[in-house]
Amino acid sequence: MSSVYGKNIKLSIFGQSHAPAVGVCIDGLPAGFAIDFDELNAFMMRRAPGRAAHATPRKESDEIEVLSGLNKDGLTCGTPLAALIRNTDTRPADYEQLKDIPRPSHADYTAYVKYGESHDIRGAGAFSGRLTAPLCIAGGICLQLLKSEGIDIAAHIAQIGDILDLTFDQVKADENNIRALREADFPVLSGLAKELMLEAIESAKKAGDSLGGIVECRATGVPAGLGDPMFDGMENSIASIIFGIPAVKGIEFGNGFDAAVLRGSQNNDAFYMDGNDVKTRTNNHGGILGGITSGMPLVFRVAFKPTSSIAIEQDSVSLSRREDAKLTIEGRHDPCIVPRAVPCVEAAAAIALYDALLDLNKNHP
Amino acid sequence: MSSVYGKNIKLSIFGQSHAPAVGVCIDGLPAGFAIDFDELNAFMMRRAPGRAAHATPRKESDEIEVLSGLNKDGLTCGTPLAALIRNTDTRPADYEQLKDIPRPSHADYTAYVKYGESHDIRGAGAFSGRLTAPLCIAGGICLQLLKSEGIDIAAHIAQIGDILDLTFDQVKADENNIRALREADFPVLSGLAKELMLEAIESAKKAGDSLGGIVECRATGVPAGLGDPMFDGMENSIASIIFGIPAVKGIEFGNGFDAAVLRGSQNNDAFYMDGNDVKTRTNNHGGILGGITSGMPLVFRVAFKPTSSIAIEQDSVSLSRREDAKLTIEGRHDPCIVPRAVPCVEAAAAIALYDALLDLNKNHP
Amino acid sequence: MSSVYGKNIKLSIFGQSHAPAVGVCIDGLPAGFAIDFDELNAFMMRRAPGRAAHATPRKESDEIEVLSGLNKDGLTCGTPLAALIRNTDTRPADYEQLKDIPRPSHADYTAYVKYGESHDIRGAGAFSGRLTAPLCIAGGICLQLLKSEGIDIAAHIAQIGDILDLTFDQVKADENNIRALREADFPVLSGLAKELMLEAIESAKKAGDSLGGIVECRATGVPAGLGDPMFDGMENSIASIIFGIPAVKGIEFGNGFDAAVLRGSQNNDAFYMDGNDVKTRTNNHGGILGGITSGMPLVFRVAFKPTSSIAIEQDSVSLSRREDAKLTIEGRHDPCIVPRAVPCVEAAAAIALYDALLDLNKNHP
Amino acid sequence: MSSVYGKNIKLSIFGQSHAPAVGVCIDGLPAGFAIDFDELNAFMMRRAPGRAAHATPRKESDEIEVLSGLNKDGLTCGTPLAALIRNTDTRPADYEQLKDIPRPSHADYTAYVKYGESHDIRGAGAFSGRLTAPLCIAGGICLQLLKSEGIDIAAHIAQIGDILDLTFDQVKADENNIRALREADFPVLSGLAKELMLEAIESAKKAGDSLGGIVECRATGVPAGLGDPMFDGMENSIASIIFGIPAVKGIEFGNGFDAAVLRGSQNNDAFYMDGNDVKTRTNNHGGILGGITSGMPLVFRVAFKPTSSIAIEQDSVSLSRREDAKLTIEGRHDPCIVPRAVPCVEAAAAIALYDALLDLNKNHP
Repeated sequence: MSSVYGKNIKLSIFGQSHAPAVGVCIDGLPAGFAIDFDELNAFMMRRAPGRAAHATPRKESDEIEVLSGLNKDGLTCGTPLAALIRNTDTRPADYEQLKDIPRPSHADYTAYVKYGESHDIRGAGAFSGRLTAPLCIAGGICLQLLKSEGIDIAAHIAQIGDILDLTFDQVKADENNIRALREADFPVLSGLAKELMLEAIESAKKAGDSLGGIVECRATGVPAGLGDPMFDGMENSIASIIFGIPAVKGIEFGNGFDAAVLRGSQNNDAFYMDGNDVKTRTNNHGGILGGITSGMPLVFRVAFKPTSSIAIEQDSVSLSRREDAKLTIEGRHDPCIVPRAVPCVEAAAAIALYDALLDLNKNHP
Repeated sequence: MSSVYGKNIKLSIFGQSHAPAVGVCIDGLPAGFAIDFDELNAFMMRRAPGRAAHATPRKESDEIEVLSGLNKDGLTCGTPLAALIRNTDTRPADYEQLKDIPRPSHADYTAYVKYGESHDIRGAGAFSGRLTAPLCIAGGICLQLLKSEGIDIAAHIAQIGDILDLTFDQVKADENNIRALREADFPVLSGLAKELMLEAIESAKKAGDSLGGIVECRATGVPAGLGDPMFDGMENSIASIIFGIPAVKGIEFGNGFDAAVLRGSQNNDAFYMDGNDVKTRTNNHGGILGGITSGMPLVFRVAFKPTSSIAIEQDSVSLSRREDAKLTIEGRHDPCIVPRAVPCVEAAAAIALYDALLDLNKNHP
Repeated sequence: MSSVYGKNIKLSIFGQSHAPAVGVCIDGLPAGFAIDFDELNAFMMRRAPGRAAHATPRKESDEIEVLSGLNKDGLTCGTPLAALIRNTDTRPADYEQLKDIPRPSHADYTAYVKYGESHDIRGAGAFSGRLTAPLCIAGGICLQLLKSEGIDIAAHIAQIGDILDLTFDQVKADENNIRALREADFPVLSGLAKELMLEAIESAKKAGDSLGGIVECRATGVPAGLGDPMFDGMENSIASIIFGIPAVKGIEFGNGFDAAVLRGSQNNDAFYMDGNDVKTRTNNHGGILGGITSGMPLVFRVAFKPTSSIAIEQDSVSLSRREDAKLTIEGRHDPCIVPRAVPCVEAAAAIALYDALLDLNKNHP
Repeated sequence: MSSVYGKNIKLSIFGQSHAPAVGVCIDGLPAGFAIDFDELNAFMMRRAPGRAAHATPRKESDEIEVLSGLNKDGLTCGTPLAALIRNTDTRPADYEQLKDIPRPSHADYTAYVKYGESHDIRGAGAFSGRLTAPLCIAGGICLQLLKSEGIDIAAHIAQIGDILDLTFDQVKADENNIRALREADFPVLSGLAKELMLEAIESAKKAGDSLGGIVECRATGVPAGLGDPMFDGMENSIASIIFGIPAVKGIEFGNGFDAAVLRGSQNNDAFYMDGNDVKTRTNNHGGILGGITSGMPLVFRVAFKPTSSIAIEQDSVSLSRREDAKLTIEGRHDPCIVPRAVPCVEAAAAIALYDALLDLNKNHP
């Protein structure tokens, strides 16, 4: 279902791409916090299509309308905060044929199986990337709350196609890098990588095709001790929200799949004292040990498959006639959603981290 | 926390490596099912250390004692099934120094931060691989329930160090392959891979080091329509249990991280009719679209970091003196836990799939 | 928090009395259902203040705006349904003094303790009876879904002050009684009781005082087998939603507190066969045994304390000055909210019952 | 299901009356606490049958076996605490006929509908009063944790049949009263009430009948601010656990059903300053306003129906033959379970209160 039930922060996301609105109800925010709505809108802009030439030409206004949760002075009042974003600029006619002929590698078919004839096929209904907007509202607020506690989260495009960006670790990313990423239209650390990636995307677009990619995300200032063992570890909670972002097919923490080929002597991170703080010389563990944060930067990477909606003719079936059929998808589709997914990944991490942070003081009465 | 709250199946796992017992309470099993305890014990044997020469010499008896949930005829009676396994063959003295000098890349340090002085350091307490035993009890039962519904799950070692096994897809794995895997002491599809992997493990062991690896898991006979959109998709639920297995640092579905480098035209899976059934010609999506199963085999891979407990001397710190210190770990430790993790991965997938299966009939009143 | 997490139906209610809107997000509704919005609006009207002379003169429009969850044909599409009701006709100035001088027996004080200065004091913020509107949207939809399955729920005012109405059992209530209740401005079974109650309310109103009461609720056509033992029984789930209605201070099922004075021989309900159906000659158990429905009508009663906001001067304290203070509440307040609470009680029962009904087919694979 | 999911404390209770054991897994306890097992055993004794002449002659040993959750020094280590109690002294033969001929007002019939033939009918299976033992283990631990925070909970028999005890308020109960209640074999405040009640029970027993009653429970030292609005209020959480105790048919807080007949001017509790503390002159609200504790004693009453298992011949049906049948229940059954239920009510309140207490520091960042 479209809910995230953390221990303290509970979200309900609603909406379909062509319903009157998409939105979110967030329960568990503390009272007395002043949400910076300018900052939140700027964060939302980073995911809005139409902002940059390489994305979907569909122009969505991501104007947030707050329905509840603030008192007359505009501070959070401790009770659920609900917000919505109206859907405008929709063109339902684009989607009629998809009810019968599902798009390969898209949720058209599985939604048909699950919901039957009543499934809202328009714009992918509730499987649309549009639903990442309310996720970003909630995550954007959590990012601000975390920042007020000294915790900072940033993400960038690590890879598009087979072109790699530099990593946070490689550039020894600092505040300037992070600020630049947040203001960038195309968030990468290396200018050269940006050029090559944009070329690759343009090339795919011209061919009526699409590209996938990888996003790297890093949280700094994270205190040690967040998360619980076993099924409520930080990896579990982050993964359970991240897989709610469309097109995600994998997640890895620290060295991730690369750790699999290493020996323990290579992968282990030695502890050392930095003044009175315990740190590790390397950070292969990505800031999480036994599901609990260690105080080192929390680092993870998310794999996005290429957008399934491509212009090239594809083989599919007619669900009504139960026979093979060809499909050519009309309409406007993003050749690469990875740049837009970057703030979504930050949002997901923020929700999981803030939920865990609210627990920090509870284990030692 | 040590609970898994699916919609229908709810597990509570308890225990520490050196507590009197480890165990599980499973709520939501249907009434009237005859659990095959011989089959369950055989499944548990696949994870028990000491069974094979290459694993930890610690001999655990994985004898399951059922405390509740069965009626006088031995059938499930619909109310919670609780079972435990006594801890024997423990040697607490091995662990004293670890209270002060944490093992690199191990949960010693983070548990100390979270629980303070009261943390049960013995044998890694509740972070021990021993806790996979109760997970396997629950998963083993779910595997039997799924089998009775025509759903089959099998896993194998896909990689150890840099040595790859063949994949399920490559060998077009059938019932014979699967049976062989379940009876194998070292579950791989290729005899050559087995030899090379065993050599690599032996080599690491001699060096007082350890190796990581990857497990591939595949479920067949899965009906389309399982799972819910967004945060309750099959990827979310499988991932949230999988990350509860110690040493897991990554998970990917279908093509996973490889999909990131592909174009849509390469990664999309074309639909076609096979009689009256909708299938896909390729299975890059790994059986899940939009969080919901498509009916194609559900395939995923899990990355395991190398065991952190190695014999080689390492750099660490003394938490009491707040200064750098050396650490040499005594005791018996597995150089590679990947073979033992194979049934754990099947167990995790089984719990998530069975929980989703129980929902299948609910969306069309 | 303002969420109800049933096994299948999950609600998030948001809003404060003076926020832009109140609303609800409902997850778990089946796809393909045609909600009758005229019937839903008629249901909402039964709780709207201003409709009858004896209630609050504040006129709220309870116009429901659906934000998501319906497809282009207006049927539920299986994904979350979110709806809101705009708050109009508010007069914030009425509430300024209450920030410092809390109303006796009202949540002003406890909200102040919990949320501090940021608490939205206007109109009781999130503790307002206004929040029963979104509860009724969700419950109204569940009532329609239940009706389509042959389950019917009706409630009436059982008591106001010390004036008793007849009970469902006493009048052997049938369809005509139920229809009359739903169309009634003041839902009671006995015309005489209505007169006396209205007099009592008018008398209290003139005195600047208020009255409490009891609501009786009955569900018929309930199949046996709904609910789970122990903590997820029907009593537990109904109670956990009912206590979310403001002013509720007690709930009892079947004979309830009266059962406490009886002997087993008087309270037990004998089983007998009615054709092929198992029934009970009396229904002291109120349709629930061991938390599970028996097939007999499910009957319960809810106690409402008298409205705490009365015009009579009261003793209170000044929270800022930490000294005793007098309080005279201005503004418009209902002398008796019991008539308006009747549909809220039906709504709560409907949500709990529908959630349990969705589970009915799962225990016998 | 047999789980309680608070925000912080999560319980899973398992067992049937004639399974090898009953037990509980408690997750969320803080690390470093020294449970006083002598005190816990004394608490368990208060519910054990056979201790007093008027109860069931079945002698159960309530010896607690801890399986996990303690470190080598016997302190809680922060991970789940699981404990069991073996079932001994069972006589399964007593229950054979009940599989076909259900006991009136008992869960035999509803469990049959829900679980079918596989239901464990022995001793009422999972619907047995025996399951209150694990509830009391969890509650007993929470009582100790609460005590360490200055919160005290005590309950007594308020009524048996039509004989009333004095109330906590009437005797202005202090520490001495409370201590006496805890050591009493028959926990009432008035010696006269005790005599009359014992006579009434004996009279019912001789007649082969049973009696119901009411328990009053009071928590003192409760800080203001515990609980959340709407569906997570203290009334909701206490009620959702209390209805898990067998035979409970009603619950009321403060004045409860009596508030329904009062006017606001009579029921409202005036605030006043007691030094720097805000208090109320009367406590009709029972310590809870808007779901949140006010700091005044939290008071509630629970209604227990008379034990359904009576010796007198009753009318029932044969489920196999689908015809009316007579039933005479053999075996040993409590004529009045109210005295034994007193510690169970304290346990339930303790779990709900401790869970809410763990949240206390989170709303003001």
